[in-house]
Amino acid sequence: MTSRDYLHKAFLLAKGANLKQIRPNPFVGAIVVSQDGEIIGEGYHQKAGEAHAEVFAIQAALLKNLDLSEATLYVTLEPCSHIGKTPACTDLIIQHKIKKVVIGSLDPNPLVSGAKKLFDHGVIVETIITPEIVELNNVFNINQIKKRPKYILKSATTINGQIADRFGNSKWISNAKSRAYVHEFLRARVDAILTTAKTIMNDNASMNIRLEGTAPTELNLIVIDKHLDLLKKENEQLPIFYKRINSKIYLVTDKSFEGKLRTDVELIKVDMRNKKIDLTQLSSQLLSKNICEVLIEGGGVLNASMIQEKIVDEVFMFICPSINTDSSALNAYSSNQVQKMDELMKLSLLETKVFDNDILLKYKVLITKS
Amino acid sequence: MTSRDYLHKAFLLAKGANLKQIRPNPFVGAIVVSQDGEIIGEGYHQKAGEAHAEVFAIQAALLKNLDLSEATLYVTLEPCSHIGKTPACTDLIIQHKIKKVVIGSLDPNPLVSGAKKLFDHGVIVETIITPEIVELNNVFNINQIKKRPKYILKSATTINGQIADRFGNSKWISNAKSRAYVHEFLRARVDAILTTAKTIMNDNASMNIRLEGTAPTELNLIVIDKHLDLLKKENEQLPIFYKRINSKIYLVTDKSFEGKLRTDVELIKVDMRNKKIDLTQLSSQLLSKNICEVLIEGGGVLNASMIQEKIVDEVFMFICPSINTDSSALNAYSSNQVQKMDELMKLSLLETKVFDNDILLKYKVLITKS
Repeated sequence: MTSRDYLHKAFLLAKGANLKQIRPNPFVGAIVVSQDGEIIGEGYHQKAGEAHAEVFAIQAALLKNLDLSEATLYVTLEPCSHIGKTPACTDLIIQHKIKKVVIGSLDPNPLVSGAKKLFDHGVIVETIITPEIVELNNVFNINQIKKRPKYILKSATTINGQIADRFGNSKWISNAKSRAYVHEFLRARVDAILTTAKTIMNDNASMNIRLEGTAPTELNLIVIDKHLDLLKKENEQLPIFYKRINSKIYLVTDKSFEGKLRTDVELIKVDMRNKKIDLTQLSSQLLSKNICEVLIEGGGVLNASMIQEKIVDEVFMFICPSINTDSSALNAYSSNQVQKMDELMKLSLLETKVFDNDILLKYKVLITKS
Repeated sequence: MTSRDYLHKAFLLAKGANLKQIRPNPFVGAIVVSQDGEIIGEGYHQKAGEAHAEVFAIQAALLKNLDLSEATLYVTLEPCSHIGKTPACTDLIIQHKIKKVVIGSLDPNPLVSGAKKLFDHGVIVETIITPEIVELNNVFNINQIKKRPKYILKSATTINGQIADRFGNSKWISNAKSRAYVHEFLRARVDAILTTAKTIMNDNASMNIRLEGTAPTELNLIVIDKHLDLLKKENEQLPIFYKRINSKIYLVTDKSFEGKLRTDVELIKVDMRNKKIDLTQLSSQLLSKNICEVLIEGGGVLNASMIQEKIVDEVFMFICPSINTDSSALNAYSSNQVQKMDELMKLSLLETKVFDNDILLKYKVLITKS
């Protein structure tokens, strides 16, 4: 087996973790290999706050009473060099005199300089940057580098970009298969949905996760609600106020609220910038709540703000087989700001997926900032 | 070989014709097969006004001095029963006492009742409706049934349906590969482009066919130009007025023109209906000029009118990797008419094609009228 093979095996171990258990941490897998190529220990990071992958792998090898001074540790992510909730992995490697460490991806966190520390202590360090491994921690990397959640913007439009007719009716532009995909592969993977009070009230949406054959699952909801409309008496019966055990509704506002809040509702207070919610401030508050990945499911105004703010990472467009010729129909992106041809936000097409007559186009946004 | 195999061979013969040579006629291929299964004659319709496929095939068989009374004729389209520019093929079949005729598609023209006539004269008639054969004459069938050209609407938009910024600038939303495809596979196959004077003046477009490595080829141009703006002195230098030998510019108007027209310009006079050009009238005039297939390359207003009129057969959308968030950007379809969710024009997705980051979505429009 080559180094790449061992790294791929460590990658498969890493992937085995439950996304929701490890957040906000990265996926990490590790393998200890003896001088003669035998795998003598393996492990992966299983739960935030608990042991790192390297610890599991090294402990497994130690249980076999083997000398590790000729062993190689393959690890998908640069080992940590600082003491967080658990001791630094570099110390463990140095302590057990492991001869060589092969790393599949570098830690984007500048506090982590594990490779350098190992090298300084005489460990042979080889770095093989492996795309599948880097991609696996896409959310973690964005969180670390940009200090904000990863944002995915989803919309379903007619072939000419309209999300609703002029009266705001959008039911249903996309077909049942497309909508099932949104629940199973988008809502189920993110930590929260971001939307606006207007969309909530207009669509009477529950914004939970509904998979065929199972009971609905709850999901955190972040609602831009400057005037705290959702706390008004007449909105008490909205479907988003279903019984929540593990999730919250975060209302984003610059206002204060005097009354008593429901236990499942929390306010996120942010400043206004140019008469708009400061999305950068919101982002860092979300990350501090371990909301690492957010699905934007709003209207054209929220979508346009997020895109203009350059904080959207991926765009999922469901292009559906109808045309709305009405020039007052509602577009997926709607701002009063002039935008010329040479100022358009550019994307890169990642993947397409056909659901009968709907087609999902997945894009990466090319220019984003923190 | 089975009947389907012979029909497929006749289909391949039919396809060999040059589209531009046969218009407005259909593609037709024919094969005469002897009692022992040997192909003893074949032919295809090569040029409008000249012999039909059956004539070539039967003549080839006769040259071999064979008795056709035990032969079978395989023909992709129901043989004609009326005398047009050439004698009726049914008469030829009956005259030579051909035993059996196998037909791959029925003629949509109600004047053609060849199958019945053959049957009445004792010929064994078998009809095997073959999708590839029917599809080959898609344009001819639309011409015959709907008494109008086939219309293909093409646009290139941002992912949210915008074809230009609010200043009308659209250069370039799609990439060079997409644009090359439009020239090679759309413009090169149709008989004319339909657009508006506004688009011509705004885009300074030449609307010819430009294929890499060859000189531009001319193409008929139909321009909705109510006020005959293109005949004004200041527009004489527009690129559409390139030297034309085989093509014309048709200006569509309800006005008369007193001056002397350029030889390559012709007026199509139509009435107004609800303050708009009567597109049904225009359609029948185009068909009478043997313009059988038209590519619509206009702005949002023309596109919306054509769609509302329910005379578009296919829609080719190039979805390009950019977003225009400006609510005043120009949409691919733009009308003042209210359109509710349950009134949207429905499409069916036929095919997709990726050109780097652009994607072409080909649709069939589900409801069209004559």
